[in-house]
Amino acid sequence: MTLRLCCAWIFIFLLPGLSDGRKLLVVPMGGSHWLSMRQVVEKLSERGHKVVVVIPEVSWQMETTQAYTVKTYPVSYTLEELDNAFHEYVATHLKDLPFPLNALALYNSSVHVFRMFFVQCKNLFSSKETLLYLNQSGFDAVLTDPIFMCGATLANYFSLPFVFFMRGFPCNLHYEAPQCPSPLSYTPRLFTFNSDHMTFFQRVENALVSLLELVYCNGFYEDAIKFSSEVLQRDVSLLDLLNSASIWLLRFDFVFEYVRPVMPNMVFIGGVNCAQRKPLSEEFEAIVNASGEHGIVVFSLGSMVSEIPMKKATEIADALASVPQTVLWRYTGEVPPNLPKNVKLVKWLPQNDLLAHPKTRAFITHGGSHGVYEGICNAVPMVLMPLFGDQMDNAKRVESRGAGLTLNILEMTSKDISTALKAVINDKKYKENIKRLSDLHLDRPIHPLDLAVHWVEFVMRHKGAPHLRPAAHDLNWIQYHSLDVIAFLLAVVLLSLFISFKCCLFCCRRCCCKKGRTRKPTKSKSH
Amino acid sequence: MTLRLCCAWIFIFLLPGLSDGRKLLVVPMGGSHWLSMRQVVEKLSERGHKVVVVIPEVSWQMETTQAYTVKTYPVSYTLEELDNAFHEYVATHLKDLPFPLNALALYNSSVHVFRMFFVQCKNLFSSKETLLYLNQSGFDAVLTDPIFMCGATLANYFSLPFVFFMRGFPCNLHYEAPQCPSPLSYTPRLFTFNSDHMTFFQRVENALVSLLELVYCNGFYEDAIKFSSEVLQRDVSLLDLLNSASIWLLRFDFVFEYVRPVMPNMVFIGGVNCAQRKPLSEEFEAIVNASGEHGIVVFSLGSMVSEIPMKKATEIADALASVPQTVLWRYTGEVPPNLPKNVKLVKWLPQNDLLAHPKTRAFITHGGSHGVYEGICNAVPMVLMPLFGDQMDNAKRVESRGAGLTLNILEMTSKDISTALKAVINDKKYKENIKRLSDLHLDRPIHPLDLAVHWVEFVMRHKGAPHLRPAAHDLNWIQYHSLDVIAFLLAVVLLSLFISFKCCLFCCRRCCCKKGRTRKPTKSKSH
Repeated sequence: MTLRLCCAWIFIFLLPGLSDGRKLLVVPMGGSHWLSMRQVVEKLSERGHKVVVVIPEVSWQMETTQAYTVKTYPVSYTLEELDNAFHEYVATHLKDLPFPLNALALYNSSVHVFRMFFVQCKNLFSSKETLLYLNQSGFDAVLTDPIFMCGATLANYFSLPFVFFMRGFPCNLHYEAPQCPSPLSYTPRLFTFNSDHMTFFQRVENALVSLLELVYCNGFYEDAIKFSSEVLQRDVSLLDLLNSASIWLLRFDFVFEYVRPVMPNMVFIGGVNCAQRKPLSEEFEAIVNASGEHGIVVFSLGSMVSEIPMKKATEIADALASVPQTVLWRYTGEVPPNLPKNVKLVKWLPQNDLLAHPKTRAFITHGGSHGVYEGICNAVPMVLMPLFGDQMDNAKRVESRGAGLTLNILEMTSKDISTALKAVINDKKYKENIKRLSDLHLDRPIHPLDLAVHWVEFVMRHKGAPHLRPAAHDLNWIQYHSLDVIAFLLAVVLLSLFISFKCCLFCCRRCCCKKGRTRKPTKSKSH
Repeated sequence: MTLRLCCAWIFIFLLPGLSDGRKLLVVPMGGSHWLSMRQVVEKLSERGHKVVVVIPEVSWQMETTQAYTVKTYPVSYTLEELDNAFHEYVATHLKDLPFPLNALALYNSSVHVFRMFFVQCKNLFSSKETLLYLNQSGFDAVLTDPIFMCGATLANYFSLPFVFFMRGFPCNLHYEAPQCPSPLSYTPRLFTFNSDHMTFFQRVENALVSLLELVYCNGFYEDAIKFSSEVLQRDVSLLDLLNSASIWLLRFDFVFEYVRPVMPNMVFIGGVNCAQRKPLSEEFEAIVNASGEHGIVVFSLGSMVSEIPMKKATEIADALASVPQTVLWRYTGEVPPNLPKNVKLVKWLPQNDLLAHPKTRAFITHGGSHGVYEGICNAVPMVLMPLFGDQMDNAKRVESRGAGLTLNILEMTSKDISTALKAVINDKKYKENIKRLSDLHLDRPIHPLDLAVHWVEFVMRHKGAPHLRPAAHDLNWIQYHSLDVIAFLLAVVLLSLFISFKCCLFCCRRCCCKKGRTRKPTKSKSH
């Protein structure tokens, strides 16, 4: 593995014309989204490009570094307000409300978070100094996580080619915008939690959700679109903003995602976050070694959620006592009173490095895409406790591959957790399935990190990738679906049938008239 | 470039587990199709795999070699018969018949060639000794050019995973079989010669051709399907035979092909044939050096067609006299009496090596996919004289990119050829466009040859690539297009409307009756 990575690096490093020092503007999304993007940005910096990361003065996990230039702009909110908005969002997911109150509450809290982030974008465009700096920098391209649209707006504003780096949009936008067909019969929509093998009624549900998408995404992005239209001084739609992305770097592959049509400007870099692997620190190495033959369980609900309500924490602690493994739990909340001896609470853990350890038996995760891929890369079976966003769908994908078990965090009991954890540790099929997925995932011609770097550089070198833009963008809805052609051909067929019918009728009538006329004289003769 | 290729090779060579000596059965198609496949096969042999290439005793350009095992089987035809069938096929394309006689003649001659090749497959299955040898060899996978279906039938017969290596099928089969959507509005069908930007009537034509495909491909493959059904002892359709291909190695990319939806098990290896590059022999080096400042023009109608009717040859010779460049023409027919001094006739030429020479100014080609890619790899503008198969469509693609000019071989005059040749040599836009295409094509994260080798090895290692098989294969036509869901939802909507309407009607009637009843007594009172 080391030899392989080393060689891949040498290979890329020696490519002629690749380290010709171009200029890249990065507009990231803070928090967990930044974790894998940072690796790509660092690699691009290492390769001699001038990288400027533009971030708000108040944000999550966006520590400054020497590796690239960080340009901050002032914002009109405090870190506390940002945290509160997010905590409220998570808390809504943990409330056990009946339908449709739960759906409405989730929708409203999502819209609230989206609005909070759009404020960032307004703040950015209000900072004349930042805009002037960016304008004068002469960037070759923009790399952005487009979930809140600011990067796309900025790239359109400066007329720069742009690359998206993301797991996906809600509402299928990451397929709609690049004109990628999504047959509803086997491509499950986000938030349906269906697999690619659907029953008839699941397919009906899928179709209904796709209709609903037309409505709910407008709610999410209403503010962003209004603002972009103002900034760009023209009426833009959501698809207008997104469809000129040169390359879509998508953080999944088809070991995890269900197989479906894709477009040539989509590049799949699932597992990009597994690239950085370091030896364990002495502290963690000691814990792992002390775990004996039973090994360890890694437990983290992601970089964004490190505490949960005490009731849930107590139930979980209760369940963890039932396994002989040492559990390393990333948890910063109040310590549950029933915390068993085999559980070590830590404020932070080197997740990928721990998962890579041969003593790791299972991974309890919220099902974030980074965590899931670290589970896959290291072949560790998972117990998934999805909280929000795409996590439930991610969990469903892992479960449908037989590589883990999903628990409903609202309904799970201590016994459910214990049963699921024991199953993934002791039932060999989970380990076999995740090992198979891992082998398939790792057997690739080039590492996803190198692939991502290549395509960002490609866009910088060629000022975009217009040769990968489908002609479908130049068609309207009726033309795209050939409805005008179908109507024309139907009209021709019907007209032909009508004319043929009329001709036949005319011929028949002539024949009848002739017969009639030939008979008439006979009759008159008889008279 | 050398460093880059060298490093790519070192990289692949050092990958652990890649040279673990697996067994591969190769079922190629002879003639020009074999040219690029041979490079992949040789590379796989070099990497320690046991490769057996199974070929008929009588075939084109399938010289034996030490690099891999060649297993031949007896056939029931002679080389003369094979050559005659092909010459008749080419001759039909050079006949100037009116429509629809030309279409019928082309269809019939194609069916004849297809039948000739199906005989090979029957001969293979008649050779008990060959079948026994193949059965006992314990192959891990089959690599095949499936144009005549024999490899697919053989792989199905031995229940082996298989990889297709090809430019494409007629009738869009290479998209139909892997369940890849092909929107008719911007994906031109083969033989329409349209681009991805179509007028309304071109889109109508495209739709009509797609309907025609349902018929004409059955004609081409009728014998193959009948034979496969016999061999496999079950009723198979064309799609049944093809849809379990693990990987489709397709010899194009989106610098050449129009951008369109693709599937994750399609791997694009356009330019795979440009990998082998050698210095020119003394003979050719001398000719090129003697060409002076004007340089040379490379002229070849492909490995399969080295002579043309004298009338055409004379016209061409006439045109070639009008340019100052030295023309290297691969031609084995009778020497035209007007052959100018600047034209050198050769029986064979190192096409890719000559195109790579900086003194090469233009490439006159029949538009075969190998030649076109060698033109693109080496950034040489083209004059295209398509003859048969996909060549007209290939030529259209090059022309639509502004990288060459297409001539109709039946109608072209000496002046047309001269004008086209002078244009691509002297008008800078052709050189600029082909240079742009070449830069885009060559800027890739991994060489197509290494990519092809990787995916063949992947299929051998994992016994296929079932994780890349879309669930669409398990749906019928109605389910795939969600017609049942649409019918159900429509029924629900109509039923709801009907019930609402009935309820309204009922309420109205009750209201009216009430009013009527309340009014009646009043009326009776008035009486």
